[in-house]
Amino acid sequence: MTATSDSPQARHAVRTLRSSQIREVANAGFGVPDVLPFWFGESDRVTPPFIREAAAEALGRGDTFYTHNLGIAPLREVLARYVSGLHGATSVENIAVTSAGVNALMLAAQLVTGAGDRAVAVTPLWPNLVEIPKILGATVETVSLSYGERGWTLDLERLLSALTPGTKLLMINSPNNPTGWVMTRDEQRAVLDHCRRHGIWIVADEVYERLYYGEAVERAAPSFLDLASRDERVICVNSFSKAWLMTGWRLGWMVAPPTLMDDLGKLVEYNTSCAPSFVQQAGIAAVEHGEPFTRALVADLRASRDHLAAALAQLPGVDVKAPPGAMYLFFRLPGAQESLSLCKALVRDAGLGLAPGSAFGREGEGFVRWCYACDPARLDRGVERLAGYLKARGVR
Amino acid sequence: MTATSDSPQARHAVRTLRSSQIREVANAGFGVPDVLPFWFGESDRVTPPFIREAAAEALGRGDTFYTHNLGIAPLREVLARYVSGLHGATSVENIAVTSAGVNALMLAAQLVTGAGDRAVAVTPLWPNLVEIPKILGATVETVSLSYGERGWTLDLERLLSALTPGTKLLMINSPNNPTGWVMTRDEQRAVLDHCRRHGIWIVADEVYERLYYGEAVERAAPSFLDLASRDERVICVNSFSKAWLMTGWRLGWMVAPPTLMDDLGKLVEYNTSCAPSFVQQAGIAAVEHGEPFTRALVADLRASRDHLAAALAQLPGVDVKAPPGAMYLFFRLPGAQESLSLCKALVRDAGLGLAPGSAFGREGEGFVRWCYACDPARLDRGVERLAGYLKARGVR
Repeated sequence: MTATSDSPQARHAVRTLRSSQIREVANAGFGVPDVLPFWFGESDRVTPPFIREAAAEALGRGDTFYTHNLGIAPLREVLARYVSGLHGATSVENIAVTSAGVNALMLAAQLVTGAGDRAVAVTPLWPNLVEIPKILGATVETVSLSYGERGWTLDLERLLSALTPGTKLLMINSPNNPTGWVMTRDEQRAVLDHCRRHGIWIVADEVYERLYYGEAVERAAPSFLDLASRDERVICVNSFSKAWLMTGWRLGWMVAPPTLMDDLGKLVEYNTSCAPSFVQQAGIAAVEHGEPFTRALVADLRASRDHLAAALAQLPGVDVKAPPGAMYLFFRLPGAQESLSLCKALVRDAGLGLAPGSAFGREGEGFVRWCYACDPARLDRGVERLAGYLKARGVR
Repeated sequence: MTATSDSPQARHAVRTLRSSQIREVANAGFGVPDVLPFWFGESDRVTPPFIREAAAEALGRGDTFYTHNLGIAPLREVLARYVSGLHGATSVENIAVTSAGVNALMLAAQLVTGAGDRAVAVTPLWPNLVEIPKILGATVETVSLSYGERGWTLDLERLLSALTPGTKLLMINSPNNPTGWVMTRDEQRAVLDHCRRHGIWIVADEVYERLYYGEAVERAAPSFLDLASRDERVICVNSFSKAWLMTGWRLGWMVAPPTLMDDLGKLVEYNTSCAPSFVQQAGIAAVEHGEPFTRALVADLRASRDHLAAALAQLPGVDVKAPPGAMYLFFRLPGAQESLSLCKALVRDAGLGLAPGSAFGREGEGFVRWCYACDPARLDRGVERLAGYLKARGVR
């Protein structure tokens, strides 16, 4: 709806939040038959049956009441064991269950930042981490990764200089959406040391930690939890969406200092009060019985990544590198200097749904994001369409 | 955990939010066998089977993916029809699905208020409406209802004077938790006129609208939606929790001007992204097939209200009135001048779980809240315990 000057409007800080360019692309494809959608950060596979059944059973026995703000005790306990197994001793007192990973990011921001505070974020980045602090009146400075021979890398000195004394928090996402960049342990150590010295909070979005394809076969990407104690200014956010294919469930958790938990409980109360009780029961099933599933999923994703990267590398003008984490290829494509226009044209003219690089910050211009969490045959059909599109435009 | 001066802490505005006195009372009852809990705003009955089955079926067919930020189209459509039936023509463009009623309140506050803004709330009140604007840096002035012969009533002139030009929003809850007070249509008209003149937003929490026991047999309590157009500064918040016994599902909605919806979609994205997909399917079943259930529920609640009020009126020193809405009796009790201490003693010494009046604001001191959403036999056992407690303390 077009607003007249009299129409009620949201406040300025909300009107200037970014809206989703991915949705803008999807809208451009309305009415186009048979679009192949690789634009969302979501697998095309349904949540595994054992998890869905756990929720259905909980519903059957009448598990439909409010729960504790921080989550039901058995879920907090299995999460504490799970996190301890990946990253060292973590107590139930460190764990809070949230209504999605993004909800954990919002709660973390509410905990530590308010009007006039300064935040820093490393980009290209899923917009949510940059926009959330602005809702609370904070300003967000972005530090760009660099793109070169080795793909996307961090200029550590540039990040440390941006983390000036008085900065309230760093929002950082590794493995990174959209680039697949994974922060090294040495980089994490340097950032943690620096933030300790200046009392800066680290809010680490580690929802892709299990989608990690590093050289050594590790169960998870390097995490701030591997280095930090459990009672310092580090909040690690996680989600059930990626490792257990539970995007539509809106279930996440955070690991935070116990000294925050009473205040966090209040914020949960004032945001959603709790995650649905039967959804939390499904979370228990996922963590307790999901390890073989997650390992097989990661093997599939690695194969899809390699398959897509090899196929894209054959196309003229495409510059693609297979990154060590997440579930995206973020690659250079002829015409992507205006990535939003290009992606609209791709969906309209070729039935190919990609996310424009500019959706993830200025630095993403020139790139497009392709989510490869689907079977290779579907990826092939997508590559074919892209090849046809490029050929028709005379790209060689 | 006790924090040392070095321990990481939440920011000041969060530390000073109120924590739940009801939980404090519940904690005092730890280890007490056979407590009768009337403290939470929740029925003791499970969600009806046809709603639970709709969610289980959606899970069975693999409905586990992200949805549109504002909710799935079929749910928005049935809600538009439902609201139109109760309160006049309302379009899908006015409806947004949220992750609980309280989440809708948080989103409404984020839409219109930020640091330095002034909000007004009518108390005694469920604490969430008072605390939410503070998370965003606003200040909240409270205007107290008056208690007298006719129970709790609004001093309209006092409220209008508090709504000074420049005030950003009014947070108001009718039917009211905890008092059961219901705003009259005339009062709503006067407040709406005043807020229109000064450009003040009205955020109306109407989650108890169906739990209404007015003289005329109406399907719902008077609503701002009966008076306001659908494109002015009025946001009405609702929930599936009360009318369909879906507390643990965390599903709500709001009715708001279409000119807000794009910005609201962004805020939903940055708060929870969407409500779970299969939970939204359950919401469709509730609205489409739940009317006979809700009517029977309201009849039961009215009977429980009358039953409890009559029983309490027999007790020495108790001053109780049966209010026209919600599912609580908020009554004067000897010793409740320090209602928190009294309620702790009641749970410890009599196994009776009530909510202290002070949990709902200073004006609530002297009162306790009793949720009567349970079967009359259970209410009788509770009254017996209260009678025994009073007798043992020599109250006549």
